[in-house]
Amino acid sequence: MENNKLEIYNSKEEYLSDLEKRGKLPEGFKTSVISMEFFPAERPVKKPLPMRLSLLMLDKPTSVFGAAFTRNKCPGAPVIIGKARLMSDKVRGVIINNKVSNVCTETGVEDSTMLLEHLAKETGSSSQEFFPSSTGIIGWQLPVKDMVKNIPRLVGELAPGTGVNLAKGIMTTDSYPKLRSADVGDGRIVAVAKGAGMIEPNMATMLSFIMTDISMERDTIRDILKRVVEKTYNSISVDGDQSTSDTVIIMSSCTKKKVPEKEFEEALFKVCSDLSVDIVRNSEGCGHVVKVSVKGASDYVAARNFGKAVLNSPLVKTAIFGNDPNVGRILSSIGDYAGNNNLALNKEKISLFIGGEVIFEKGAFRLDQEKELRLVDYLKSRVLDSDHKEFPSHNNTVDIDVILGSASGSATVFGCDLSNGYVRENSDYRS
Amino acid sequence: MENNKLEIYNSKEEYLSDLEKRGKLPEGFKTSVISMEFFPAERPVKKPLPMRLSLLMLDKPTSVFGAAFTRNKCPGAPVIIGKARLMSDKVRGVIINNKVSNVCTETGVEDSTMLLEHLAKETGSSSQEFFPSSTGIIGWQLPVKDMVKNIPRLVGELAPGTGVNLAKGIMTTDSYPKLRSADVGDGRIVAVAKGAGMIEPNMATMLSFIMTDISMERDTIRDILKRVVEKTYNSISVDGDQSTSDTVIIMSSCTKKKVPEKEFEEALFKVCSDLSVDIVRNSEGCGHVVKVSVKGASDYVAARNFGKAVLNSPLVKTAIFGNDPNVGRILSSIGDYAGNNNLALNKEKISLFIGGEVIFEKGAFRLDQEKELRLVDYLKSRVLDSDHKEFPSHNNTVDIDVILGSASGSATVFGCDLSNGYVRENSDYRS
Repeated sequence: MENNKLEIYNSKEEYLSDLEKRGKLPEGFKTSVISMEFFPAERPVKKPLPMRLSLLMLDKPTSVFGAAFTRNKCPGAPVIIGKARLMSDKVRGVIINNKVSNVCTETGVEDSTMLLEHLAKETGSSSQEFFPSSTGIIGWQLPVKDMVKNIPRLVGELAPGTGVNLAKGIMTTDSYPKLRSADVGDGRIVAVAKGAGMIEPNMATMLSFIMTDISMERDTIRDILKRVVEKTYNSISVDGDQSTSDTVIIMSSCTKKKVPEKEFEEALFKVCSDLSVDIVRNSEGCGHVVKVSVKGASDYVAARNFGKAVLNSPLVKTAIFGNDPNVGRILSSIGDYAGNNNLALNKEKISLFIGGEVIFEKGAFRLDQEKELRLVDYLKSRVLDSDHKEFPSHNNTVDIDVILGSASGSATVFGCDLSNGYVRENSDYRS
Repeated sequence: MENNKLEIYNSKEEYLSDLEKRGKLPEGFKTSVISMEFFPAERPVKKPLPMRLSLLMLDKPTSVFGAAFTRNKCPGAPVIIGKARLMSDKVRGVIINNKVSNVCTETGVEDSTMLLEHLAKETGSSSQEFFPSSTGIIGWQLPVKDMVKNIPRLVGELAPGTGVNLAKGIMTTDSYPKLRSADVGDGRIVAVAKGAGMIEPNMATMLSFIMTDISMERDTIRDILKRVVEKTYNSISVDGDQSTSDTVIIMSSCTKKKVPEKEFEEALFKVCSDLSVDIVRNSEGCGHVVKVSVKGASDYVAARNFGKAVLNSPLVKTAIFGNDPNVGRILSSIGDYAGNNNLALNKEKISLFIGGEVIFEKGAFRLDQEKELRLVDYLKSRVLDSDHKEFPSHNNTVDIDVILGSASGSATVFGCDLSNGYVRENSDYRS
């Protein structure tokens, strides 16, 4: 994710028009999205809540699919079912709902299973051929009876063509739909993702669904997905937490010719990498997108963890929010991570840069009044519009470069600052 | 820290009067505090900043002392010197400054050393007999020349009697001084501490200085300190980070008779435990003090880490700030911690309670509309006054009980919610 300089737009229309251009589905896929209402059993306010159901479906079942799930030990029912589904011979699609994430209720797995059975009946498939996927409140019951009633309508509206409706359908507190695609060989890769108002998987779940028509072996697509997810979706973070529901699913219709493995992996990496940064910058409370590049760590994972330690420090994040180059907090977060994890750290070999400007070198801070003023200006120039616009209007990042030594491990991670908007959104999430 | 129900007061005068009662210094100690001004070399605004110097000194050097320091791998010069000082035969005192934490500057260790040399000269001691201690901005140079000029005045004002001036002297963004004491045998333990406006060691450093006159072996006092720090200062947290400067120092004048080791340890535990909770509740942005009690973990450390995982989840913290019983986030933070650390977790054995009310049991959430309304009322009843008052006017806590299984490891940790006040304070820390 070194060079993710994303596009910017002047209007919602301009953005959506570009999205339509990107959004042409690979061969063999259809999607549909519908709205419904339900009354959550646990909610004190007795008013209906809107729910969106989205369906992503292959014309024919495929054996070429893979998935990556949260490592959270209290996962939702859809994750439990999804992990089992990886053993299925073939799959045909994914049904997705928002509002209720179906985590640890007494009937959670039965609820999702019942939903899939009705979907299977309506589509003439087996319930074993579908992934369920849910995002929303943790702890509430899935309103499965209401959902089942709407399945005929959901299946009836399946259509080929564009994936943009799916990108819109899976949104929760995102302020615009996110879709990336790439042409590969004779075919395509199209991926949609949802983050959250605050970009953070744990808040409202990170979901991404990837469709392709390139032929491939099942083992190959799974290996590639694993490598790509590590360096893209797993390299964005707000607070290091992971949701009970984070899910990435890839499926191929295999209607187009094979391409060299490396070519497919590069294209998929670009798609997922751009989508990851899309998720980060589309965050309501986000004042600055922060990019931390770490070099000289013992390996990739160590580099990524040091980068996330900087990204996830509330003190680094609040300083950036305030355009305050309180650079000591960056070094402190690195030293804290090393100390808590018993990692060697030679501060004589550490160099730190913000926006290319050296702030720490050879064991000591390198600060002066003029530099501090320049850093304030730099941070101010990186501020995102505070309005949660319905299109990406900015692509500036606060670039923090960390060199830990001369080893070869490097990683780039993306996150955002910690703002009043984050607190507002998350303290009032369900109201 | 099971039963830390602290006192509450109706006015600043009432609190300070109580503090004076607690504050009588142990035999053999003197303290002094003075104010001075300096011009930080790195600060764009060319206006003087006020700094406070505090001195804590024994009438005679003692070999009975110990200390605990941050594990941060980029510690400040005072921590580097302090760790070496643990090898000294005897010590006489501690000099403390605020505003500049003296971390990783080119001349940091020399600066602190020069300060100690002047202090030694002025007091007729060896510079090896003093601990330096600094809190404030990370990265700025210690204004050692200005400080040295003020040492004669600082030493001149040393006086026995009360420790309250020291408790006030070491304050930074704390809104009231914190001091706890206990009578033990013929003597006393008196401890002062500073947290930060936001209670969090990493922001402005947690410092605590503990004085006693009870005779003891050096090894004994060090063993006791280690055990007590683990269960008190190391059991409070806002975000799991640790400062480059966190320091706890204990010294005994040994002018009073020995007491049984257990008796001393219990008294010290009570003093440090109450001080830790004092630090938590005196936090400017803190809307709720949160107490997480974990039982049934494999051991104490595991229990504490699960508790801190709950305490440190921004999503749990923002929900509590908003009086929103979004209880799914509590389970998610537990599952996330177990997943990231490859720990076994049997959700069938987990029980969760808020304010004594069961919210999760036997693998499923136990929620209904009435319970949700009761939980909202409970959270609202726990809100601290939003004014950052100059005395503790409230002692309510949000009690979260976590039972993980039937193993014997248990721990109680204290923290606070994540509020707009936190963001405001930390994004504007240096202005």
